[in-house]
Amino acid sequence: MDFLTESEMRTAPYEFPEDSPIEQLEERRQRLERQISQDIKFMNELGGVDRTDDGWMKERVLPMEREYQRVSISGEEKCGVPFTDLVDAAKCVVKALFIREKYIALSIQNFCKTTARELGELGEKPLDLRIYEEIPETPVDADAPVHPPVSETHPYENQDTKNMPADTGYSCKMVDGVMHVYTKKSPMEKSTELDLPYPDLKEYIADMNVMMALIINGPVKSFCYRRLQYLSSKFQMHILLNEMKELAAQKKVPHRDFYNIRKVDTHIHASSCMNQKHLLRFIKRAMKKYPGEIVHMEHGRGQTLMEVFESMNLTAFDLSVDTLDMHADRNTFHRFDKFNAKYNPIGESILREIFIKTDNHIEGKYFGHMIKEVMADLEESKYQNVELRLSIYGRSRDEWDKLAQWAVKHQVYSDNVRWLIQVPRLFDVYRTKKQLANFQEMMENIFMPLFEVTINPRSHPELHLFLQHVVGFDSVDDESKPEHHIFNMDSPLPADWTEEDNPPYSYYLYYTYANMAVLNHLRRRGFHTFVLRPHCGEAGPVHHLVSGFMLSENISHGLLLRKAPVLQYLYYLAQIGIAMSPLSNNSLFLSYHRNPLPEYLSRGLMVSLSTDDPLQFHFTKEPLMEEYSIATQVWKLSSCDMCELARNSVLMSGFSHKAKSYWLGPKYSKEGPESNDIRRTNVPDIRVAYRSETLLEELNLITHAVRTKELDNIDEEDTLSMAPIGAEGR
Amino acid sequence: MDFLTESEMRTAPYEFPEDSPIEQLEERRQRLERQISQDIKFMNELGGVDRTDDGWMKERVLPMEREYQRVSISGEEKCGVPFTDLVDAAKCVVKALFIREKYIALSIQNFCKTTARELGELGEKPLDLRIYEEIPETPVDADAPVHPPVSETHPYENQDTKNMPADTGYSCKMVDGVMHVYTKKSPMEKSTELDLPYPDLKEYIADMNVMMALIINGPVKSFCYRRLQYLSSKFQMHILLNEMKELAAQKKVPHRDFYNIRKVDTHIHASSCMNQKHLLRFIKRAMKKYPGEIVHMEHGRGQTLMEVFESMNLTAFDLSVDTLDMHADRNTFHRFDKFNAKYNPIGESILREIFIKTDNHIEGKYFGHMIKEVMADLEESKYQNVELRLSIYGRSRDEWDKLAQWAVKHQVYSDNVRWLIQVPRLFDVYRTKKQLANFQEMMENIFMPLFEVTINPRSHPELHLFLQHVVGFDSVDDESKPEHHIFNMDSPLPADWTEEDNPPYSYYLYYTYANMAVLNHLRRRGFHTFVLRPHCGEAGPVHHLVSGFMLSENISHGLLLRKAPVLQYLYYLAQIGIAMSPLSNNSLFLSYHRNPLPEYLSRGLMVSLSTDDPLQFHFTKEPLMEEYSIATQVWKLSSCDMCELARNSVLMSGFSHKAKSYWLGPKYSKEGPESNDIRRTNVPDIRVAYRSETLLEELNLITHAVRTKELDNIDEEDTLSMAPIGAEGR
Repeated sequence: MDFLTESEMRTAPYEFPEDSPIEQLEERRQRLERQISQDIKFMNELGGVDRTDDGWMKERVLPMEREYQRVSISGEEKCGVPFTDLVDAAKCVVKALFIREKYIALSIQNFCKTTARELGELGEKPLDLRIYEEIPETPVDADAPVHPPVSETHPYENQDTKNMPADTGYSCKMVDGVMHVYTKKSPMEKSTELDLPYPDLKEYIADMNVMMALIINGPVKSFCYRRLQYLSSKFQMHILLNEMKELAAQKKVPHRDFYNIRKVDTHIHASSCMNQKHLLRFIKRAMKKYPGEIVHMEHGRGQTLMEVFESMNLTAFDLSVDTLDMHADRNTFHRFDKFNAKYNPIGESILREIFIKTDNHIEGKYFGHMIKEVMADLEESKYQNVELRLSIYGRSRDEWDKLAQWAVKHQVYSDNVRWLIQVPRLFDVYRTKKQLANFQEMMENIFMPLFEVTINPRSHPELHLFLQHVVGFDSVDDESKPEHHIFNMDSPLPADWTEEDNPPYSYYLYYTYANMAVLNHLRRRGFHTFVLRPHCGEAGPVHHLVSGFMLSENISHGLLLRKAPVLQYLYYLAQIGIAMSPLSNNSLFLSYHRNPLPEYLSRGLMVSLSTDDPLQFHFTKEPLMEEYSIATQVWKLSSCDMCELARNSVLMSGFSHKAKSYWLGPKYSKEGPESNDIRRTNVPDIRVAYRSETLLEELNLITHAVRTKELDNIDEEDTLSMAPIGAEGR
Repeated sequence: MDFLTESEMRTAPYEFPEDSPIEQLEERRQRLERQISQDIKFMNELGGVDRTDDGWMKERVLPMEREYQRVSISGEEKCGVPFTDLVDAAKCVVKALFIREKYIALSIQNFCKTTARELGELGEKPLDLRIYEEIPETPVDADAPVHPPVSETHPYENQDTKNMPADTGYSCKMVDGVMHVYTKKSPMEKSTELDLPYPDLKEYIADMNVMMALIINGPVKSFCYRRLQYLSSKFQMHILLNEMKELAAQKKVPHRDFYNIRKVDTHIHASSCMNQKHLLRFIKRAMKKYPGEIVHMEHGRGQTLMEVFESMNLTAFDLSVDTLDMHADRNTFHRFDKFNAKYNPIGESILREIFIKTDNHIEGKYFGHMIKEVMADLEESKYQNVELRLSIYGRSRDEWDKLAQWAVKHQVYSDNVRWLIQVPRLFDVYRTKKQLANFQEMMENIFMPLFEVTINPRSHPELHLFLQHVVGFDSVDDESKPEHHIFNMDSPLPADWTEEDNPPYSYYLYYTYANMAVLNHLRRRGFHTFVLRPHCGEAGPVHHLVSGFMLSENISHGLLLRKAPVLQYLYYLAQIGIAMSPLSNNSLFLSYHRNPLPEYLSRGLMVSLSTDDPLQFHFTKEPLMEEYSIATQVWKLSSCDMCELARNSVLMSGFSHKAKSYWLGPKYSKEGPESNDIRRTNVPDIRVAYRSETLLEELNLITHAVRTKELDNIDEEDTLSMAPIGAEGR
């Protein structure tokens, strides 16, 4: 690059030894900055200087950077709308937040602590559930290394059922699409039922209608839109005033930079987590290594890998990324059919079956090996983690066991990887093919094994082991598909849903949620609980985002929030995680530079970057870095923005509280800047402080307005939506 | 990614075994395609199947794909403007092309063969110069491997001067800023001067004025603008009609894909060719490896590397990419001063001196090692090459020898790398510091050693060896700097340019060009010749692009062509290479999605992608792939577009005719699709055919119009601009 004015030349890509004023200035400034940080360092020197990444913490304690330029608004009407409008809007917003809080609490998922506290001050009795339990302090101390100790023994080695928790002797049975658990083996005596709360259907539908009415309410819409605009401008001012301070803070931190902070790819599918070049190389190697292996049954007769390729007139050598033809291209834009056809290598479903399936003639051997190669790369990268999606279809009862056996048999495990289970919304297809009699069967196939293994781990030993690394459920399919039904009280119950049409998105989500909620309560006996993290708002009707708001801890995509100001504002206030994948959107249906991510980020929504599908969308060996790089370049993100995105990805991920304590700092679950440890996250406290102060102000604006009119605020609807939960469920 | 309509589901990221019609269709289609290519393959089977990348060629000969949907225009007035307007415009365009042809021919650079032939038919006597010599056929046969044989002995090992060409006994002397060569050692007797042609100053300035008048001529402007629009729409139609065919052609080619075609990074600076993470790691390693090494003299006293860092209060451990602070950020946009200050690691010029300079207390040892690490990565990548810029300033006579000694001493060489010499336009700075008395001194410092080593290689043995890997000259500086002078007949001659102001861009370029031209003629005794490839049109006045058009084989950047339709049209007709670096532009001054590259590409300009400066602009370990990836994603380029860009980068690069024959095919220097070997380039013949047919049509439109009015076409200006060259030079 050769834009040099005389004064700057000596620092051009061509060396130039004389001094120039601006540079001496630069040098002085930077020396000063360094001196300051050094003083602090020596000030706090605790001796014992260790030079390894793991020892360094001992050496210095940076003071929390709290001083920065704040934007504050004075005057009476702080939000630019007449007070009465504010009150009406605030009432609606609060009502919506209470609805979410209720369902999140009920299912033992995480609800934003700050928001919960502010709502609590509105006098609602806190629901006695996990969200109000203080997360137990882990034994991670302030100077702990950034890498947790690696698990010494391979988690799948100890398969001795004797070491597994004993059978509780419970039994379970699905009633009206939701699992019920009984203390006796014979689930007949109602009296013996355990009290595991789940939402009442009538109440859920009522709440859903409240939400639907609320998001199309004109005044509320313009209020939320206005607030979002305000949040954008406020952030812009914050940056103009504090950008330099933020950068300086990052420079002060020894050793840490964007390359060595923790990142989690929170949305990526296992079957396409390797890039196309990797898959190609793997296939070629397999053809050289196992030409004679029987990989496939063709009408009763076994076919070797060699024969399979011969039948296609192909040799290992012929293969190229082009023949593989699995990369998204211009023709996939708004063409999901073409796009999906690309999931077959060389357009041959058989290769897909052989190489990227867990359940095939070779018991998913190749696929297992490939995933383990990806895992090895991640472990080598040290700072990158992924949450891979694996599929459970609900077509048969043994899917879970098969999947678990695949994982355990091939020892597919890594400390850097956790699993999410994606359930495709394919009931209509199975039903048409007569594989299922009704929707309840699908739910039973999905959840029965999970209840059985929770009741008695020894009944499904592999599943018991595998499940320890599963963090939650995803619901996947083309959201833009027309839905022929609306979920209301007239909708048939799961057992009666026998028609060939697919139930709507909200129906799927509700019953998945309800069963997960019951399961989580059952698992509190000593197992970890699950969360719901569906694909939501990538396309299709906006009410998907309503279901997502009510029932899920966080979501993937959320693109349509850009068209729904009320929901976007609610997702902000509730700090719901949104895993976005702009490259995937770019190939499928929203051009990169129109993607709303930078806008969401500036407003303070809890967004992160994920790859979704490196096989189809990425070119380099480092898909996640590629994703970050492009976002940074196209949207001109600062190093601070990048680090904030990375921190968000860890926060919304399903990795353990302990791991997060190492990665983000022991106090990461606290509120405000004290939750941040810049030495681990490289996110300046200034940024964290700005976010939490802004959120707090926003919540105060709302709750304050409501409190002033508390009394007018109790009407029929409210008592309904605020009623104690689960009561009607019995 | 989960956009699935029922029919497509089975191919979603979640496996789904049943058959769906669309897929069976897809499979059939693809099987058919493969069958066809297989038939061809067996048809042409020459036996002897070798499975290595180097043997594969033997196996099959694909027929040239010539059939595709062509867009043709019928009717009388084919170009949409009145005939007379067309003729006037055509005359101007032809005149401009003749001017370029003259200067390119005169300096023995490459002029587009097709354009030259079309112009030739206008009855101008061909200038007896290299562009009309057929490039000698290399012994590379059609089935040769894609990798040239690697050079067995290290080119710098054999330093025995005895093996170097003998002294010619010539002498040389600079007169009016241009070198003159004499057969006698005593350059006094004019009679003995060699006739090495170079352009006459008066003529050059006259031609320049013709060009300047031409590009602001209203009617010509609108004509060219119209043609460019036409070329865009024509390409769009071509794609709509042939995209599938192009993709199919690429799939037919065994083994070859975008990952294993040859790419050359034609614009990248040596001092910033490693990415920031690489530089950081290298510095940390150096501090561990050579803490005690004297790396720097501080007022007479030697300083060890350790001491240097201690003086900065820094430890190897403290260093991070943030402290390094060498990455472009939002604050560099339109702020070249800030940007350039970033060329100092940690803002410390001393680290820059120690680590990224060739001429320092350790004789550039560290820098040499780092470059060799980059070279090793390139060789490992197999298909990536770079043309690194190294600086010659013209401040003193020994710069060349020092640079050559650095390269030879540290054996800095790779088959994947060639050098370009960048000359910063810093006369004003040196003059102000009294390091130069006049501009001619600068020219002498730059060119005298080159003439000496050409006349007698043994006079500068290292330089003789080093020069064999130097392909040409680059001219660099901030083009947006105001120029206080216009280059015309009143401008002082180089010997008289004693003021402290900087000569204008065109003045620098003319004298660099003139001396290079003379040098090239001298070197025809058996050495390779050099080309001029300046930074041009990145910013600043548009007339830089005029000088570039007249004097240089190809340019870097060319962004401003988007504002100069006449020049853009001329650059198209002359097929002048343009190495573009959108990521660099994006950081410095043109947002990514506004970059004109995709427009240039669609119109058929000879563009390529280059990184410019990975240290500042790239994040991953594969900067060039990152550059391609982002371009492809943001602009939705097809695999065919990407491969065309890669092929262009090889064509415009300075690698040997032989190397190009291996990389692109033995006939690469021919015209039209026969020049293409899809088995090496992965570019469909269809695309190449479309480009050459379109160029031919465009040239015919012009020349035809001119021919019909040939006679009116001879006026004073013309005879001047067409006059035999060099004559006035004597």
